[in-house]
Amino acid sequence: MKLPESTEWVLHAATSLAQLGPGAAASAAQLAEHYDLPPAYLAKQLQALVRAGVLSAATGPRGGFRLARPAAEITLLQVVEAVDGEAPFYTCKEIRQRGRAATPPEQCREACGLAAQMAVAEAAWRQSLRAVTIADIVASLPDGVPGRTRELLARPR
Amino acid sequence: MKLPESTEWVLHAATSLAQLGPGAAASAAQLAEHYDLPPAYLAKQLQALVRAGVLSAATGPRGGFRLARPAAEITLLQVVEAVDGEAPFYTCKEIRQRGRAATPPEQCREACGLAAQMAVAEAAWRQSLRAVTIADIVASLPDGVPGRTRELLARPR
Repeated sequence: MKLPESTEWVLHAATSLAQLGPGAAASAAQLAEHYDLPPAYLAKQLQALVRAGVLSAATGPRGGFRLARPAAEITLLQVVEAVDGEAPFYTCKEIRQRGRAATPPEQCREACGLAAQMAVAEAAWRQSLRAVTIADIVASLPDGVPGRTRELLARPR
Repeated sequence: MKLPESTEWVLHAATSLAQLGPGAAASAAQLAEHYDLPPAYLAKQLQALVRAGVLSAATGPRGGFRLARPAAEITLLQVVEAVDGEAPFYTCKEIRQRGRAATPPEQCREACGLAAQMAVAEAAWRQSLRAVTIADIVASLPDGVPGRTRELLARPR
């Protein structure tokens, strides 16, 4: 079970955009150069963040990507699910109701105990990522990083 | 991010084997028929459970698969990891140290804050699945299921 490689990219991209000054934006090309990433594929992932309401995108000379809301209101879960979706990890196909051992439907009104526990575990993962915001990550960056990020992304393209 | 479809199969297979009487075993063909699953592919997954030390396999007329240790000592995590591996979901390729914005190595002695939080979330998922055993699942089965499982799997092949 693997998250796509681009999960790291979008988490860092959102963190970088959270370090920009008010009104500032950065293009996909700038963010790609910032981290040495493939620009076209990064742009596609950033569009997924726009669709998820995490980023907004504006065209024009001062355009680019910026956070769609304050960094303190964007959780790691929202960024991760923007590129990986919200589907459960574990799919229960109700095999308990199949085959020679099929449990009769009247005994299957409650969720399968295995599916229920798998769901509890996934909820724990989601809850953990819901408890941390992009603002928390920015606050944990080493000294000097936010200043350098602002300076690098403010350079003319 | 998806667990393989066979995760459901092996969780149910381990649960079924936990319902057998002492010394009893079941073949891959029996378990496949029990749940209407493809026998060859199920057999491959059961071998993975043997390699992980969850099941043991014996050949001969009374052979087949059985639990390698008491059901109360087999966690859901062990069964899931037997087929899906133990690799982390999130891979940190240290993109913070790449590109124009590269953070200098002396500021990267601690794990990236994003990687650290992703690891916390994965630990919560694992801990949740480590806290539940196959014996807990058997105890939660509807009335009559264990008796029927024993009876069905005891039938001659």
